[in-house]
Amino acid sequence: MEGVDHLAHERSKAQFDVDHMKVVWAGSRHTLEVSDRIARLVASDPVFKKDDRTRLSRKDLFKDTLRKAAHVWKRITELKLTEEEASKLRFYVDQPAYMDLHWGMFIPFIKGSGTEEQQKKWLPLAYKMQIIGCYAQTELGHGSNVQGLETTANFDPKTDEFVIHSPTLTSSKWWPGGLGKVSTHAVVFARLITDGQDHGVNGFIVQLRSLDDHLPLPGVTVGDIGMKFGSGAYNSMDNGVLRFDHVRIPRDHMLMRVSQVTREGKVVQSNVPRQLLYGTMVFVRQTIVADASSALSRAVCIATRYSAVRRQFGSNDGGVETQVIDYKTQQSRLFPLLASAYAFRFVGEWLKWLYTDVTQKLQANDFSTLPEAHACTAGLKSLTTSATADAIEECRKLCGGHGYLSSSGLPELFAVYIPACTYEGDNIVLLLQVARFLMKTVSQLPSGKKPIGTTSYMGRAEHLLQSCCNVQKAEDWLKPSVILEAFEARAMRMSVACAKDLSKFTNPEEGFAELSPNLVDAAVAHCQLIVVSKFIEKLQQDIPGKGVKEQLQILCNVYALFLVHKHLGDFLSTGSITAKQGSLANDQLRSLYSQVRPNAIALVDAFNYTDHYLSSILGRYDGNVYPKLYEEAWKDPLNDTVVPEGYHEYIQPLLKQQLRNSRL
Amino acid sequence: MEGVDHLAHERSKAQFDVDHMKVVWAGSRHTLEVSDRIARLVASDPVFKKDDRTRLSRKDLFKDTLRKAAHVWKRITELKLTEEEASKLRFYVDQPAYMDLHWGMFIPFIKGSGTEEQQKKWLPLAYKMQIIGCYAQTELGHGSNVQGLETTANFDPKTDEFVIHSPTLTSSKWWPGGLGKVSTHAVVFARLITDGQDHGVNGFIVQLRSLDDHLPLPGVTVGDIGMKFGSGAYNSMDNGVLRFDHVRIPRDHMLMRVSQVTREGKVVQSNVPRQLLYGTMVFVRQTIVADASSALSRAVCIATRYSAVRRQFGSNDGGVETQVIDYKTQQSRLFPLLASAYAFRFVGEWLKWLYTDVTQKLQANDFSTLPEAHACTAGLKSLTTSATADAIEECRKLCGGHGYLSSSGLPELFAVYIPACTYEGDNIVLLLQVARFLMKTVSQLPSGKKPIGTTSYMGRAEHLLQSCCNVQKAEDWLKPSVILEAFEARAMRMSVACAKDLSKFTNPEEGFAELSPNLVDAAVAHCQLIVVSKFIEKLQQDIPGKGVKEQLQILCNVYALFLVHKHLGDFLSTGSITAKQGSLANDQLRSLYSQVRPNAIALVDAFNYTDHYLSSILGRYDGNVYPKLYEEAWKDPLNDTVVPEGYHEYIQPLLKQQLRNSRL
Repeated sequence: MEGVDHLAHERSKAQFDVDHMKVVWAGSRHTLEVSDRIARLVASDPVFKKDDRTRLSRKDLFKDTLRKAAHVWKRITELKLTEEEASKLRFYVDQPAYMDLHWGMFIPFIKGSGTEEQQKKWLPLAYKMQIIGCYAQTELGHGSNVQGLETTANFDPKTDEFVIHSPTLTSSKWWPGGLGKVSTHAVVFARLITDGQDHGVNGFIVQLRSLDDHLPLPGVTVGDIGMKFGSGAYNSMDNGVLRFDHVRIPRDHMLMRVSQVTREGKVVQSNVPRQLLYGTMVFVRQTIVADASSALSRAVCIATRYSAVRRQFGSNDGGVETQVIDYKTQQSRLFPLLASAYAFRFVGEWLKWLYTDVTQKLQANDFSTLPEAHACTAGLKSLTTSATADAIEECRKLCGGHGYLSSSGLPELFAVYIPACTYEGDNIVLLLQVARFLMKTVSQLPSGKKPIGTTSYMGRAEHLLQSCCNVQKAEDWLKPSVILEAFEARAMRMSVACAKDLSKFTNPEEGFAELSPNLVDAAVAHCQLIVVSKFIEKLQQDIPGKGVKEQLQILCNVYALFLVHKHLGDFLSTGSITAKQGSLANDQLRSLYSQVRPNAIALVDAFNYTDHYLSSILGRYDGNVYPKLYEEAWKDPLNDTVVPEGYHEYIQPLLKQQLRNSRL
Repeated sequence: MEGVDHLAHERSKAQFDVDHMKVVWAGSRHTLEVSDRIARLVASDPVFKKDDRTRLSRKDLFKDTLRKAAHVWKRITELKLTEEEASKLRFYVDQPAYMDLHWGMFIPFIKGSGTEEQQKKWLPLAYKMQIIGCYAQTELGHGSNVQGLETTANFDPKTDEFVIHSPTLTSSKWWPGGLGKVSTHAVVFARLITDGQDHGVNGFIVQLRSLDDHLPLPGVTVGDIGMKFGSGAYNSMDNGVLRFDHVRIPRDHMLMRVSQVTREGKVVQSNVPRQLLYGTMVFVRQTIVADASSALSRAVCIATRYSAVRRQFGSNDGGVETQVIDYKTQQSRLFPLLASAYAFRFVGEWLKWLYTDVTQKLQANDFSTLPEAHACTAGLKSLTTSATADAIEECRKLCGGHGYLSSSGLPELFAVYIPACTYEGDNIVLLLQVARFLMKTVSQLPSGKKPIGTTSYMGRAEHLLQSCCNVQKAEDWLKPSVILEAFEARAMRMSVACAKDLSKFTNPEEGFAELSPNLVDAAVAHCQLIVVSKFIEKLQQDIPGKGVKEQLQILCNVYALFLVHKHLGDFLSTGSITAKQGSLANDQLRSLYSQVRPNAIALVDAFNYTDHYLSSILGRYDGNVYPKLYEEAWKDPLNDTVVPEGYHEYIQPLLKQQLRNSRL
């Protein structure tokens, strides 16, 4: 059966042009071409083999990761890859490593917060990897609240140096990736203190390890923080702990683009607006949304293909059983996730545009759209990462028992993905920021201030608070205008209800704290509206390829109506739709599933993932699942011997009833 | 700070008698005493140390498990433990091992399906562990659908033997715990074939390994199926694969309590009713519900204690930050889970009673309550395991970044728990069984047949389809009668709506398939009603101890109103409550959280878990989290050396720009 495509029949059912859909998913023909080429390059290189990851001990896994990281660098330089290609290469190698933080946080932060002079000094070293950097912000006792950090950077005017110090155990830096065993340098966040006065938190470049022998420098205690969720997963990363005992660094190692400390120890604000720093945040969060669509689409690809391979029940006469993908219970759980993958892809694409837009405006000293852009990226980061984490586990469950095997790829994917819900802003904290922005927007409505961007629907408050959903029959739910208005009405009404409840409190902060669960719900409603509306906008573009637009239309409707079903309580309690209309939405949703069904395999093929990248026997392109599962089992170290180690000490004495005399 | 109780202040706030609550949680003073004694015995025994589990390689972990299993047996015999004590001992050792299946499946199945003669032959050997058995049902290609199994047991009248054979790759036995490396015997499920005729699936006792040297017997291919979710977790278990090549066993190795094969190869039904076998199923599922409350309460205990230790935000003046447990967003996620732990505990207790009741009735040949009992245990197994799996992950998220560390105990707990959603009946398949029973019950209402047990509310269909929820103000939601009626109305109306929709199909099976997602929702509504009503029943009992009943009353209301909030769409769309009433429920819920807050730590102390059993630094009884996290980090193998293995090959050449010349 080797070489046979067990899913060929499924593929032949597709009612659209898969190659065109691949272009849509990739974003452009150029990106598809680069991705495809680099993905194959990675898949064919034996150094990048990763299917034994979960079987390796921590040390072996880490060493393997170092090897891969060095090989990545070697291939990038040998092949003279462009920045785009290099970033794709790191992406497809798909093993968290210190490199991620060096390129993803250390370098961008120096770019964003260093003066030109500082950038000139540090960036070339970093680009050539003559130094390796990490981003040391969080502490053992301090996470989301950056202003609560305890590490101090005390300016000593006598020597023109900062003294970096960890005054307490809880001030130990904790979590930074790449810190534990690899980084030579770190951007360290510490309280800037001059002449006994605390000026708040700032970033400092601190060398941690000798460039000669890699030993920690005097005053630096550094190590790995230990095992994390899963086998494989983030255990390839040396998340670290770091303590400073009065470590001295030159004054110009403080990143001074915004605040500066003079030779005399005076703190001076530069003329660079602080808001510029938010640009970086928008950038990082936009990449997180893009990553969410990647992770989600991987899980969905695995679960969809396996659901077409797996058969169960449905035959009482010993004949062939039913493919589990044909069960409505399976479809009603799987297809909304497939639709979500596409939805997140498109909202991620739009966020990329938003970042460019914000950057251009910032450069022109126009900060007017920044709060809205900031709220919107925070909210979408929260929404997409939470949904993706849940969805990966749901996909695992959709694979039944075999989803629990490491060789399904799903446990690893879950374990490696879930930190996204916490890093770069805890998802609940972020939603509260969105809620705060929404409450401000609502409070300014009476003054006639026009809400912009993703909140512009709030300008139609009066209409949305009174509108009736125009659905008489199930098919009415297919109209984009109907869907949009229902989501807008729900979001608007939830925000207004929160604002009304808040106004009953004399102390607004107390009210905000007391009502925070409701505020979170309102923020979610707002963010879901954004995703739905960006999907609808995407469909208004010209999309070539036979049947491609039609498929996306179906997925857009699945995504929206699935949300209506899931959050029916919101829609009904705000009166945005009636119970009857809710039931019609559900009927329509069911009939959409039947339209997705024949296209399901082709829709996940469009992600264009190699078997190497998927790293899942259940998700194999050729569907040849069972023989490969069987083959894989025998590779476990426990199968090295027929009789297990420990038999003579711990099993035989039991069977022979000699236990009482034996020493354990 | 060693020895200091950092949570003492929290404990002093409790408004109830914790010792009495411990008795309530344990079920009786006797059980509490036994649990407490055995838990301490395990915690103080160095062989049972488990905090390094996630750092061990598969082989070392497995050997450690064999050692523990043998030590368990040694202690049980040395201390002459009672059956109750022995089972507690295995529980507190808390490491999945072949023993679980030997005692939990192999022995009970022989008891349930063996003739008296067979029981006399096999049970004494099994009780003394002179043989070790497992339960080999599922196959590589076949899970929930037992009737679809492919393994054959062909009767050969010439030799009076069965020939056990695996005709295809997909017929390989796959998953049985204890099979991979340890079991000497298995109950194997195979198609009984006599004279070319297929008589369906039956159980057979097959010896797999030699009792002399542990080598597989001729014709037996057996091994471990490889790594599963997580580090530690179920990787201590040798889930196995097994293939038969025409293995011969004596005829009397077929378990013949219900069906028998005569010397001539005729299949004869005994006079033992088949329904007796369902008794075992009720028993096993009842233990799964009890396990759900254990796993959930562990996770909740960890998250609650850590939420009281962890501080974040809330201070702009450098003063002490707010405990995260004081945030409403934290409370609204955590306290419903705390309430769920108690709710599942009590419904588990009731299921134990139900099992006794069913058993007595079966013995008196009364099968009248069996379908209801079966549906009810299937539904509760599904409901409690799904909720618990989700809740463990939610508790992990509630611990922020540190929840991702293995030393938080939560990743291990999640990884080890989630198979419960799949084994002993996939949770969706089970809910469909419940739905089928509900549809049958509804269809019989017009005939006047009185629904019994947990469906007896359906006897008041007329009332429930028209009733109005009697809530005018938030406090009305505290009345048990109001809560019950709302849940009954919702469940009733959802079932009736499904029945109505089903009746529109000419082919009922087609309708059932098409509407299955709605049917699942209706089944969930029914099962939640059971949990709520059993909690309310519990409160009608005499519960001694100052303030104990009051606390449970609060938790019961939290559980119910949390469900109203979560499933508001159901309650509103069925018209069981109005939008205004839904909003009042939410207000009441928020104020209940304030009542839970001062008692939260004491409520999790009442579970009486040792630090050994919890195995979580975040959940330590004394709250001494940060120093212990710091200490634990250094134990990781990566910290064995200051400079990591691989530095010279893979890091130094990078920093020195010598990579191009080096060989990787």
